[in-house]
Amino acid sequence: MIRLSALQMQTAGTDTTVNLARIEMAARQAAQAGSTLLVTPELGVTSYGGGKDTLALAETADGPIVTRLGDIARDTGVAIVAGFAESCGGAFFNSAVYTDGARPPTVYRKSHLYGAYERELFSPQQPQTCLFTHRGMKVGMLICYDVEFPENVRRLALADAEVVLVPTATPLGYSGKFIAEKMIPVRAFENQIFIVYANNTGRDGMFDYAGQSVIAAPDGSLLASAGLAKELLTADIDPVLYTRSRAENTYLNDL
Amino acid sequence: MIRLSALQMQTAGTDTTVNLARIEMAARQAAQAGSTLLVTPELGVTSYGGGKDTLALAETADGPIVTRLGDIARDTGVAIVAGFAESCGGAFFNSAVYTDGARPPTVYRKSHLYGAYERELFSPQQPQTCLFTHRGMKVGMLICYDVEFPENVRRLALADAEVVLVPTATPLGYSGKFIAEKMIPVRAFENQIFIVYANNTGRDGMFDYAGQSVIAAPDGSLLASAGLAKELLTADIDPVLYTRSRAENTYLNDL
Repeated sequence: MIRLSALQMQTAGTDTTVNLARIEMAARQAAQAGSTLLVTPELGVTSYGGGKDTLALAETADGPIVTRLGDIARDTGVAIVAGFAESCGGAFFNSAVYTDGARPPTVYRKSHLYGAYERELFSPQQPQTCLFTHRGMKVGMLICYDVEFPENVRRLALADAEVVLVPTATPLGYSGKFIAEKMIPVRAFENQIFIVYANNTGRDGMFDYAGQSVIAAPDGSLLASAGLAKELLTADIDPVLYTRSRAENTYLNDL
Repeated sequence: MIRLSALQMQTAGTDTTVNLARIEMAARQAAQAGSTLLVTPELGVTSYGGGKDTLALAETADGPIVTRLGDIARDTGVAIVAGFAESCGGAFFNSAVYTDGARPPTVYRKSHLYGAYERELFSPQQPQTCLFTHRGMKVGMLICYDVEFPENVRRLALADAEVVLVPTATPLGYSGKFIAEKMIPVRAFENQIFIVYANNTGRDGMFDYAGQSVIAAPDGSLLASAGLAKELLTADIDPVLYTRSRAENTYLNDL
């Protein structure tokens, strides 16, 4: 069992210093709640809606942003998942990093870019099976639109992921609500895994975000769900409690 | 655009004469409602819960059951989709047939059998891309557990199915409600297609069924939904109304 938190975050646009300070404050709150892992939204450090200004903040995965996130993790005892614009060999990726401040960070790059805005800024990555271990639990990462494709979640589940973490920047509207309330629980149920869907909230000049972050269990129930405001969600991820659900819904065996 | 109906049916167990009469009556009601297609539940003609008695009723696809269904279709002007135990070369399949009484019938055999009960009675079929044309619309078929695998619906959608018809025998309980309310709408949304999910209701000797049949649209909304009682649902399947949804949710292009 692990306890984790998800920060539904209002970024300060492209002010990375303020964004990192908000993540640090949430990590301290998560630590107080007993969590060992904090999931924050897509591009939360460098802003989703900053356009070219976001790209100007892009760094390599061994740059100051990931170093600072590792420091926060070490200081608070809470591993961090955070989204940032990553530069690598002249290309830009919409990336998320997992760091506990001790082991080398794990970086996942978004494979399925959504719409003209993202495709103008970023290169897509070939779909990866990005897995790491957190306190003995096998954890995968996806970003936003990636999770809307059942193929991506299935790939991680077949590689034995027990939890999939999804930083996102889903806009306000009908689809955002549908995805949070129905699609994320179904992704969890059809693979009998946990999914943490951590969204941006508020507005950033370019977009209004849906909030409505959720933490879904293998039986499709919601362990935690947010409204539209900034919120820190916390839940216990305990696969043992869902043994019966897995015994009844044997999708991965029957595929 | 086509108008279709779904019969949430209480079977008379393994009394095929009564079951066929109920389907005929529903076809007449569907015709009055302006429908040209009636979808009825999994194994509705020969009963889902009849065990070995169901198998004793198994017929080939050119036998009296399918002939009678074709007669009903021709008499009423309503094409029929119905589930029956199919025998073929010494094997038994959990099958569904589409017949309009004029063209040769289309038979689909369930690929993903659920649990020990079904696996004892039936042989699974390798997943098929079963498509036919009804009044100019491209239609696919799946049966029950098949639709719970996103891979099966995706295969049909990538083959240009606009509607997927799903005779089912989902049991009463938590999962049945979850599947009807959340999974079927998500399957529709993630492929931007229509799904007709026609369930058994009531009980036979062996099982209690969930009812709660639904007709879902490409935007994940429900065009019709049933409670627990016998009901005839009717909806217009009009892809033109969902042009905007398909433009915003470009899953099939972005896969």
